[in-house]
Amino acid sequence: MNETLNITDRSRLRRSHERGHFDRDSINSILDAQPMCSVGYVIDGIPFVTPTLQWREGNRVYWHGSSASRALRNSRDAQVCLSVAILDGFVLARSGMHHSVNSRSVTLFGTAVRVEDPVEKLNKLARFVNGLFPGRYEGLRPDHVQDLKATMVLGMEISEGSAKVRTGGPNDEEEDYALPIWAGVIPVHTSVGEPIPDPRNIDGVPVPNHVQTFKL
Amino acid sequence: MNETLNITDRSRLRRSHERGHFDRDSINSILDAQPMCSVGYVIDGIPFVTPTLQWREGNRVYWHGSSASRALRNSRDAQVCLSVAILDGFVLARSGMHHSVNSRSVTLFGTAVRVEDPVEKLNKLARFVNGLFPGRYEGLRPDHVQDLKATMVLGMEISEGSAKVRTGGPNDEEEDYALPIWAGVIPVHTSVGEPIPDPRNIDGVPVPNHVQTFKL
Repeated sequence: MNETLNITDRSRLRRSHERGHFDRDSINSILDAQPMCSVGYVIDGIPFVTPTLQWREGNRVYWHGSSASRALRNSRDAQVCLSVAILDGFVLARSGMHHSVNSRSVTLFGTAVRVEDPVEKLNKLARFVNGLFPGRYEGLRPDHVQDLKATMVLGMEISEGSAKVRTGGPNDEEEDYALPIWAGVIPVHTSVGEPIPDPRNIDGVPVPNHVQTFKL
Repeated sequence: MNETLNITDRSRLRRSHERGHFDRDSINSILDAQPMCSVGYVIDGIPFVTPTLQWREGNRVYWHGSSASRALRNSRDAQVCLSVAILDGFVLARSGMHHSVNSRSVTLFGTAVRVEDPVEKLNKLARFVNGLFPGRYEGLRPDHVQDLKATMVLGMEISEGSAKVRTGGPNDEEEDYALPIWAGVIPVHTSVGEPIPDPRNIDGVPVPNHVQTFKL
């Protein structure tokens, strides 16, 4: 197992304010902050990118889908690239060239392996639900066996990849700071709105704590 | 030119509340709503996914980066997959299986073509800046020739791809609606914070309208 996360030169984003972060804590914190990810895979030499949700358990990252999914069938036992990117702001500079975005991103490479054991698969899916909504899974109607069969869980070791983070303001050419041009950052936030109960909820069913306190 | 956008079965996301949208208006509205995208490409059979910003002009989508970028050099004249995915909410159902996300996504396939003509490239980059911040480009310090040379702009025709949209609440099994389980939607919004001026802005430089009214 390669414990050292490899530094890649795959991103064009490295600029002055940017730092490559290759330690597990940096990578994990970005994975844990945003479940939405993009999984890249290859079919007959053609690149495909599928948005899906990822969740992390220790040094592995997982995602799931229908067992019939073309994306999952073609990712299984194949080389994939999993990318999480969070937009934190727009950086407005004094020249077009130095405009940028503040962002956090992780790119992981590896072989996607299917979780074969049904009990392990169920545990992974329960961790997925509970990772977003602590304690929710145990209160749900138990999964039907046929639904589990129709679901594929893929996992990948977090062993090759990198995190990239850009923060802060614009980084202009020294002579451009004298120009009367507004420069700065427009922050971008992801926020969670008021929960919308299903009209078919049973009267009086309480809003669970994992809904009331949900944050992204 | 293929004016009919092809329906693909590449996404596993199609469920009851979901509709595939294959008309230009649906695809364009999603591309225009979120500049962050993921570009998938292949190097030596290995899939790569790079987050970047896209912008649209008519029936073409563009993205850019350093001319030295491995991502761009390997995408040029090659088959790529460009994906935009917007998370609109978490859908909490009465079983794990029916949990979902509300989202809008576009997946485009095609060959990435470099914008060769320097004047056209400059125009594309100006449209990129002005697309986000109307009128900003004309007020900036003009781009240096060497900076333009160091920048590559790639474009792709929007001719093969699909949009997928899921909205609404959970879609549970009929017998599960009798269960005393809270189900519903937790909406997710992207919002823009108060602009943060660069401390080195010239005293009294006004905050432009394109900053004050910026929305995502």
